[in-house]
Amino acid sequence: MSEIGVAPNCLDGVRVLDLSQFEAGPSCTETLAWLGAEVVKVENPKGGEPGRGLGSGPEPGADAYYFMIYNANKKSVTVDLKSNRGLTLVREMAKRADVFVENFAPGVIERLRLGWDELHALNPRLVYAQVKGFGQGSPYENNLAFDMIAQACGGTMAITGERDGPPCKPGPTLGDTGTGMLLAIGIPGALFQRHATGRGRRVQVAMQDAQLQYTRGAFVQHARSGQPALRNGAKSMAAGGLAPYGIYPCKPGGPNDYVFLFTSPNNPQHWRRLLEVVGRADLVDDARFATAAARAQHEAEVDALLSDWTRKHDKHEAMRLVGAARVPAGAVLDTGDLLAEPSFGERGIIQTMRHPRGELRMPTFPVRFDGAPSPVAPSPLLGEHTTQVFTDWLGMSASDIEVLRGEGTL
Amino acid sequence: MSEIGVAPNCLDGVRVLDLSQFEAGPSCTETLAWLGAEVVKVENPKGGEPGRGLGSGPEPGADAYYFMIYNANKKSVTVDLKSNRGLTLVREMAKRADVFVENFAPGVIERLRLGWDELHALNPRLVYAQVKGFGQGSPYENNLAFDMIAQACGGTMAITGERDGPPCKPGPTLGDTGTGMLLAIGIPGALFQRHATGRGRRVQVAMQDAQLQYTRGAFVQHARSGQPALRNGAKSMAAGGLAPYGIYPCKPGGPNDYVFLFTSPNNPQHWRRLLEVVGRADLVDDARFATAAARAQHEAEVDALLSDWTRKHDKHEAMRLVGAARVPAGAVLDTGDLLAEPSFGERGIIQTMRHPRGELRMPTFPVRFDGAPSPVAPSPLLGEHTTQVFTDWLGMSASDIEVLRGEGTL
Repeated sequence: MSEIGVAPNCLDGVRVLDLSQFEAGPSCTETLAWLGAEVVKVENPKGGEPGRGLGSGPEPGADAYYFMIYNANKKSVTVDLKSNRGLTLVREMAKRADVFVENFAPGVIERLRLGWDELHALNPRLVYAQVKGFGQGSPYENNLAFDMIAQACGGTMAITGERDGPPCKPGPTLGDTGTGMLLAIGIPGALFQRHATGRGRRVQVAMQDAQLQYTRGAFVQHARSGQPALRNGAKSMAAGGLAPYGIYPCKPGGPNDYVFLFTSPNNPQHWRRLLEVVGRADLVDDARFATAAARAQHEAEVDALLSDWTRKHDKHEAMRLVGAARVPAGAVLDTGDLLAEPSFGERGIIQTMRHPRGELRMPTFPVRFDGAPSPVAPSPLLGEHTTQVFTDWLGMSASDIEVLRGEGTL
Repeated sequence: MSEIGVAPNCLDGVRVLDLSQFEAGPSCTETLAWLGAEVVKVENPKGGEPGRGLGSGPEPGADAYYFMIYNANKKSVTVDLKSNRGLTLVREMAKRADVFVENFAPGVIERLRLGWDELHALNPRLVYAQVKGFGQGSPYENNLAFDMIAQACGGTMAITGERDGPPCKPGPTLGDTGTGMLLAIGIPGALFQRHATGRGRRVQVAMQDAQLQYTRGAFVQHARSGQPALRNGAKSMAAGGLAPYGIYPCKPGGPNDYVFLFTSPNNPQHWRRLLEVVGRADLVDDARFATAAARAQHEAEVDALLSDWTRKHDKHEAMRLVGAARVPAGAVLDTGDLLAEPSFGERGIIQTMRHPRGELRMPTFPVRFDGAPSPVAPSPLLGEHTTQVFTDWLGMSASDIEVLRGEGTL
């Protein structure tokens, strides 16, 4: 644990003016904060960004867990965007910021006169980043979008679920965080370029479009077959695929008591080693299983003989025994398993946010820099950093700030 | 289409020495190429990286579609890493590179004496980036990993599938590309920092760990309930969730003929507008549906009345009609629908790779810079750029290169 506390700090000194809300934008700016940027959320003085109230939190009236998990390591200032004085303040902040991020509904940011044209004119060095549901020029560019709408329209649902069942929504929030991560690639890229050019760029990504980046395996399937890619439970998407390839039931038979087994068609040793682990070395020369093609033809028999063994072991043991034989294996872990895994805590992959209203065990940014993870700091209370940021960024005095607070601007 | 052809070029002048293979590493370096970096794949003279042979391609003997889609816009040189002369060449290249990327099995890169310690000593400015299956310090750090193993062990499968069915593998390749995208955040971050420090950093991500970044919604569920997050088909993960929230069947009833419908509990207008679209304005004041909580209690009735309407429309029409009423709606689109959508081509989200061995319609990087997408260039033929790169990077003459080729080093 000693290394937790060493921040990646790649983006030390970078100021991010963050008008984003919910998850797609905030997951991006949280990543920038984990990389060392000073991320300042600008929030409505009346209740803050809507994510603060989305579901329950550590105690009644506290910020929601949802807000906490996507807003670690940030600062919060309150500004009333319905007042001209408030908008003027945001423009003053934009002059001193390096990055601006927003994910309002289509047209809102332009109506606030905080669009690219205005802010780029005020501060040509500003990297201006936006998430929308659908891309400019899409027939749906004015539609509302949420994670699941992006996943439906972006192709992730069509390839997820049982072969003969309806589409399922992938559990990961690819529509939101999946989009935020792509924006978080573009922003440091634009900052890097600014060293040479002195100018910021407009960086945009649509949630629907972002899904295609993660589903290219399905486009490969489509190119091979000429047909839309199919879903196939936990098995390979390809028709006439691979065996073994999929999840096998383990004891005690709970909803997530499975181990994923796979043997590479390019490495015949995998299958031989697996037969030894499951005590069926007698089948090494059996013609039904001698090649990858033969195993695919006898998939039901392959699955049966492996299940006979996996049912006698719990998933952790099955993974340990198969993995130790240098055959790919993965227990199906749920959030309970992951939170209980000591190595995640030791390595700082899961950390505890020590928030004044209660704690949250949560994953932090999984990319290490010089071996160290990003330490988690609490998500900000609403307006917690108003005085600090307006003093630092705009040189305002305590009494200036009090006046603005009194008139309801902050 | 006029804007296609304007590259983002954020990383112009950045040289990437790419020893990665399959998808997790290549998806990262391809993104760097799309941002303007010169990405040079170093490949085995005998057949190249194994992804070239993974499944079929546009014609027999050609590179696989799989390789094409993850290696657009890169260069290829051949170097025999089993020869000392070859390894010396790679070290010479590392002296002149800005970024090094590898995703070999655990221990391989150190055995090649191309580990962080060696290369950092040779070139302190080098950003050294690695993908492994499991993190250093994990009990499984020496295990093999593939996309589906990372998804099983990283928690994505446990939260995907029907409530009463077994876990499903999300169709998106989060284990591979999901990991590659996080590495692609860290690399420009480290390059940005290098302007100030003059030094590169070691950037590492494990495929299992990366999954947690995309599944934080499940950790929010866990924090709320104290129990492992559940899967729930296309519906909300939360027990006693939201209605409407899910997919509704459309005509003509094919496997992907569904529309996702959702009304925000925070915006009562959504439900009212939806009732109007489906011709049931008579229910606006019905107590069974008057609040989000009431609708959740009467989920089966909500689903039935919406299905009555959706079954009379195809998914595109249903999305158009509901979306136009400012209610969130998303047709479940498959790869066929996406490839057929004109707006993707017009906006450059889907482009055609014009490869000498055949074409591939494929998604490109969905992040726009100043409104323009990254243009797709062909994946390289094996060793296509050997002469060019060894001349440019190492100042070698054509005859030097011929000698190396003759002895089998290239």
